[in-house]
Amino acid sequence: MSDPLSNVFSALADPTRRAILARLALGEASVTELAKPFQMTGPGISKHLKVLERAGLIVRGRAAQWRPSRLQARPLKDAADWLDHYRHYWEESFDRLDEHLRTLQTKGKDGE
Amino acid sequence: MSDPLSNVFSALADPTRRAILARLALGEASVTELAKPFQMTGPGISKHLKVLERAGLIVRGRAAQWRPSRLQARPLKDAADWLDHYRHYWEESFDRLDEHLRTLQTKGKDGE
Repeated sequence: MSDPLSNVFSALADPTRRAILARLALGEASVTELAKPFQMTGPGISKHLKVLERAGLIVRGRAAQWRPSRLQARPLKDAADWLDHYRHYWEESFDRLDEHLRTLQTKGKDGE
Repeated sequence: MSDPLSNVFSALADPTRRAILARLALGEASVTELAKPFQMTGPGISKHLKVLERAGLIVRGRAAQWRPSRLQARPLKDAADWLDHYRHYWEESFDRLDEHLRTLQTKGKDGE
């Protein structure tokens, strides 16, 4: 239903799904392997995998029993590219903070 | 309820909210000003602004009538930093594609 970028951001809006991606960055894993560290049931993990799969962030193998999940990082680039347009704004706010702190420091020294 | 990073990703998982941020990047705006280009009602926009505000992506003025919204880009940096850990993976997949295309090209030339 949603546009691809919304699907990616939505898939990332959950700490377990982000942790699954971090695990898959180390190599492919089955549902059983993924369930263990997260102390989740197989169906709980499968639900998260479906969200990640719909967002294009993982692909799953075909072998019925094993079906390992593999990270597909490509859609993360689209999310990073979108965010990159705002880099200027957060860097600017850091610059302003930096300037403000320097002003406070100078004032502090003047008072000594 | 959610962790801050999940709130940010969740707020970005909607094209209207992303467009509102793009508009606010140009300068602060009231609900009425935001509603016009999006052909949405004031309450519709207000709902989106609440989500953006909860994620820390905007702040709103206090004046009862005007209440302009202003972009706060700082939380976008956290999202970009998270994504940055995966840069290596999408760059690698591009490298592999590039290599594959070069192989195809070489094969094409051999066949000439």
